[in-house]
Amino acid sequence: MPLYLIRYSEIGLKGRNRAYFEKRLVENIRTVLKDKRLKPKIKRLQGRLLLDVDKEIDLKNIFGISSYSPCIQTKAELKKINSESLSLVKKNPKTKTFRISARRLDKRFALSSLELNNKVGAFIVKKTKLKVSLEKPDLEIGVEIINDKAFIFCKTLAGFGGLPVGVEGKALCLVSDKNSVLAGLLLMKRGCSIITVEESKIKNLKELDELAKTFKCRALIVPDTLQSLKDYPIDVPVLRPLIAFSEQEIKQELEKYKSIL
Amino acid sequence: MPLYLIRYSEIGLKGRNRAYFEKRLVENIRTVLKDKRLKPKIKRLQGRLLLDVDKEIDLKNIFGISSYSPCIQTKAELKKINSESLSLVKKNPKTKTFRISARRLDKRFALSSLELNNKVGAFIVKKTKLKVSLEKPDLEIGVEIINDKAFIFCKTLAGFGGLPVGVEGKALCLVSDKNSVLAGLLLMKRGCSIITVEESKIKNLKELDELAKTFKCRALIVPDTLQSLKDYPIDVPVLRPLIAFSEQEIKQELEKYKSIL
Repeated sequence: MPLYLIRYSEIGLKGRNRAYFEKRLVENIRTVLKDKRLKPKIKRLQGRLLLDVDKEIDLKNIFGISSYSPCIQTKAELKKINSESLSLVKKNPKTKTFRISARRLDKRFALSSLELNNKVGAFIVKKTKLKVSLEKPDLEIGVEIINDKAFIFCKTLAGFGGLPVGVEGKALCLVSDKNSVLAGLLLMKRGCSIITVEESKIKNLKELDELAKTFKCRALIVPDTLQSLKDYPIDVPVLRPLIAFSEQEIKQELEKYKSIL
Repeated sequence: MPLYLIRYSEIGLKGRNRAYFEKRLVENIRTVLKDKRLKPKIKRLQGRLLLDVDKEIDLKNIFGISSYSPCIQTKAELKKINSESLSLVKKNPKTKTFRISARRLDKRFALSSLELNNKVGAFIVKKTKLKVSLEKPDLEIGVEIINDKAFIFCKTLAGFGGLPVGVEGKALCLVSDKNSVLAGLLLMKRGCSIITVEESKIKNLKELDELAKTFKCRALIVPDTLQSLKDYPIDVPVLRPLIAFSEQEIKQELEKYKSIL
């Protein structure tokens, strides 16, 4: 049963309703995993989510997630942390140098992050032949203390960050090519829900206004650049997220999201 | 009399009217230097501009310029290139290792870029005690062969790139804060000319439409993000270049252009 510690950055930064953002992210993760017929258990911790799921999964493409780590959970007690860290080291037999990177998110825990680094590090050195390397260790063991639990991991995978899809309301996205999908993605990353409409299925651009009203969309998203700048007969604001991008920047962004596109 | 070799990247990439873009860039450089009461001579070479001006200047902020180098000009003859390269080395007395980076933009020149590297490099080694380091030289001497001239330099300064202001027509920019200046800058970098209008001096947003007509603006530029999304009563397209930026990305962009802002 893999267990994942999930981090999100921007939600915490905003002076907005953090709980609402967190709930939306939880909901979005549930939706994605439900599509894969998985039944996850998700807990909201202090600035983190804890996901318990039947098998290994990829969470990279869920906007709002900045990073995530497959982890071991144990009590926030030095003895337990030592032994679980040691077990992680033993699972990585090629390791010669290591480092402990502890973070005490729960300040009630008796040891500071630095003290925890030193104590767990000393224990591993005593029990193995490994050396500590702060600069470029073969293995970095992360320890996060949250509430009365410790989460221990040696792998952190990057997500795209951004905001959870849905926190900023709905927008209609006019889709014709890759650039228009990119335009939609960039606004999903800012929290928009997207209703897509294929340009080829539209007889008259005036239909867009009707569609926006039907689906209660706050805006229309189009892939216009200055070279393809058009006006659209629609009452809601028209968003052109690619308007200040060069061709090279558009290529770079497409490359960044190729796992989604 | 400093001489500058100026490079521009995107102009060449476009399938559009290259000569028109180059002329606009020349015109923009003239305007900036005229404001400083300088009288530059500017020549269009093969994919480069050559600027001859009374004193040292900063060209970083002129959109369209990707980089520029203060340079020495000489005939495209190996003997001349050797002696001018040697004089540059002597002007940098702390140098211990060097490299020659030649580019033959004019294919009529007898030596290939590689041959030129080797010959000039060998000459410098013979005349000095310096060593060649291809990896991390103290001094890199650039040689560009264009038409029947060689341009020799040891410093390349970065510009912002983009397109020359003015090649994409005029836009009205509603200015209220730093973000709105950034919004305008991003579109100037895509080639727009900007007419600014201070929001505080506008009594009613309907005045914008009149201003756009008066100044023949193709678009209105505003700093809206999803959190500050507004609709504007104007007939031309509304451009919101910051619409897909996070707060952090806006900060980064502001930092990038702090020499202008």
